[in-house]
Amino acid sequence: MKNAIVGQSGGPTAVINSSLAGVYEAARQRGAEHVYGMLHGIEGFLDDRYIDLNNYFKTSLDIELLKRTPSSFLGSCRYKLPELDDPKAAPVYEKIMKSLEALNIGSFFYIGGNDSMDTINKLALYGEKTGSEIRFIGVPKTIDNDLCVTDHTPGYGSAAKYIGVVMKEIIRDATVYGTNYVTIVEIMGRNAGWLTAASALAKGEDCEGVDMICLPEVPFNVERFVEKVRRLQAKKPSIVIAVSEGVKLEDGRYVCELSDDVHAVDAFGHKALTGTARFLANTVAREIRTKTRSIELSTLQRCAGHLASRTDITEAYQVGGAAVKAASEGHTGEMVALKRISNAPYQCTTELHPISEVANLEKKVPLSWVNEDHTQMRKEFIDYAMPLIQAELTPIYVSGLPHHIYLNEQDLKCSMHKEG
Amino acid sequence: MKNAIVGQSGGPTAVINSSLAGVYEAARQRGAEHVYGMLHGIEGFLDDRYIDLNNYFKTSLDIELLKRTPSSFLGSCRYKLPELDDPKAAPVYEKIMKSLEALNIGSFFYIGGNDSMDTINKLALYGEKTGSEIRFIGVPKTIDNDLCVTDHTPGYGSAAKYIGVVMKEIIRDATVYGTNYVTIVEIMGRNAGWLTAASALAKGEDCEGVDMICLPEVPFNVERFVEKVRRLQAKKPSIVIAVSEGVKLEDGRYVCELSDDVHAVDAFGHKALTGTARFLANTVAREIRTKTRSIELSTLQRCAGHLASRTDITEAYQVGGAAVKAASEGHTGEMVALKRISNAPYQCTTELHPISEVANLEKKVPLSWVNEDHTQMRKEFIDYAMPLIQAELTPIYVSGLPHHIYLNEQDLKCSMHKEG
Repeated sequence: MKNAIVGQSGGPTAVINSSLAGVYEAARQRGAEHVYGMLHGIEGFLDDRYIDLNNYFKTSLDIELLKRTPSSFLGSCRYKLPELDDPKAAPVYEKIMKSLEALNIGSFFYIGGNDSMDTINKLALYGEKTGSEIRFIGVPKTIDNDLCVTDHTPGYGSAAKYIGVVMKEIIRDATVYGTNYVTIVEIMGRNAGWLTAASALAKGEDCEGVDMICLPEVPFNVERFVEKVRRLQAKKPSIVIAVSEGVKLEDGRYVCELSDDVHAVDAFGHKALTGTARFLANTVAREIRTKTRSIELSTLQRCAGHLASRTDITEAYQVGGAAVKAASEGHTGEMVALKRISNAPYQCTTELHPISEVANLEKKVPLSWVNEDHTQMRKEFIDYAMPLIQAELTPIYVSGLPHHIYLNEQDLKCSMHKEG
Repeated sequence: MKNAIVGQSGGPTAVINSSLAGVYEAARQRGAEHVYGMLHGIEGFLDDRYIDLNNYFKTSLDIELLKRTPSSFLGSCRYKLPELDDPKAAPVYEKIMKSLEALNIGSFFYIGGNDSMDTINKLALYGEKTGSEIRFIGVPKTIDNDLCVTDHTPGYGSAAKYIGVVMKEIIRDATVYGTNYVTIVEIMGRNAGWLTAASALAKGEDCEGVDMICLPEVPFNVERFVEKVRRLQAKKPSIVIAVSEGVKLEDGRYVCELSDDVHAVDAFGHKALTGTARFLANTVAREIRTKTRSIELSTLQRCAGHLASRTDITEAYQVGGAAVKAASEGHTGEMVALKRISNAPYQCTTELHPISEVANLEKKVPLSWVNEDHTQMRKEFIDYAMPLIQAELTPIYVSGLPHHIYLNEQDLKCSMHKEG
């Protein structure tokens, strides 16, 4: 097999580096002499920034550390390639293909979510059009779990485990005084409520669970929300609510837009969402005169390597390996997907799907998995999510803290001209 | 030994239940037939709410779960007993003493921070005045580490470990795009910066560490802060800052009071502090036109049982046992303190101090442990804090989540008249 190159794109996860490990080891095993890593994804590669991973992964311990290091080892980007029919597109794609040929690349792997799969889609189409033999394969990754065709996405299981664990801890913490107290926890997920739904996993024989779950799939009504809280608190003092950052009013505005925070917009046109829980906590405090607290899980939910799901780490590694296999068998313009075979015992394998079935699309939580008054997840969701959070891969603790492998910012910046 | 009673008071921690386990096991071993637990501290006890712990801790596994369950198993309170010379005090103290005698109590243990030690102080004084033979002993607990006379407090090590770990993860997450980005993390600690200082532990051979640390011990100046951020970002794009919720302006106002959040006041006259990081992030975004994010660690830092320090859990258990020993040797009106014998190897023992040296007093971070421009912790602090976060006690995972032992709200409410 010729050389390979791999990049990471979009938001980081706790296990995206395990997919990098999977791609690297599989490509090496299949005979690739060099496996290059794009720095900051396709954006950095356009700027000739990449490294030879052989120089960084020298021992099996390096690979073990990589699997347990959260965030994107290679750096990431949110860069959208121009449309192929854009008159300004040609020089961009020509530059990429020329750089790939100079490195004798036979296969190109991109680990990312729906926006990132757009990059694979365009490169594969361009490659086909120009008769390139380079294979372009997508490797799924996102804590949001909103990719189509795949049963779930690597990254989701660890984020869901994190959310289940901390919700249990928050519930324990919130009950200590026995006084009226409403805790509203804001969870990531712009349009799909998979992460917020994971708060339902906290419930068990040793935990009463969250009292209300608000998904972005269900139109949100502030007055109705306050009334539900009032009714819940009439029965018990401590109420814990999981709310998606992306809950929207019936008129389509995000609830967080009712707050006074500044909301920037990114390259893909997505508004930065924040302040939903704070706005709701202030509203509840005012309306029903109870003590409230808002908690944003913020980036902690996507970078908590110390609480990763072993199932997730293993699957992230597997999809990396499956991508290399697919490329070496001649596939291109496809994404590796996870296909669940059975739930008990949990069994999962990989398959391939055309990237066009994935790029820029979103998979939402089925409303049939939400109870009638839209406050709790049904058994179907628990059965779906529970296998994904199983088992742990203990961090390698050094001096009391999980040890990581990483490129410092200086490395990430300067490596471009030193190597390759 | 006669029967014993134990209560938990003030903010919960990851290891306060380990002290409860220590008191329970030591009292039973020393011959106490019954060890009672006050529900919601002295406030609940005044309302006849307590349980016989023998009914809840039946196996060694129960004790192991208790050691690993965060938050206060017995519930907590923030209740201030009346001053002894208050004309309304007599019926309150008489009621407590009568209830204790009815249960044949020989020793009374209260696990808490500086406010809670006020309760022990008053009860011991009242007991002495009225010739009671009941022994009143304080067991130290607070994530804030601000108790006098003790080298450190149980609860601090685990919170410090949590902060060190998540700061590492936040730093990794914040660097992924290689773009200008200022992350401001708000950490608990009203007047003492011990927890915020713990963010310095993130720095190591695999992590560049936080770029600035703002303690409440150092008067805060918003313009100077913005200037420091500007200078830091001229050198590298991602800047991560740890700021105490309790940072104050030179005129004594809390920085968070400059924000628009509501700030309630509790029974001890403490203002609720929140919004410091958000206010500073908005200010920095406006002043130096960089992308910013604020993260409040919120209650996660005090209830993260899944990331507890084994050293901390062990010491929390030991101070519980030492309290029982002290009472059975006739001491009263004293608090168990931790005394560090050596740093390398780390060795620590317990000793007793009069409660009056502790109650209502605060220990702050020595300014000599902060560098000249008040942005980083010196080696003295690292040497002090590092031993406290060492080693782990893995949670008992069931179905992918740490298992806890707990009293549900119904138990906490109803138990009062069913038992005792």
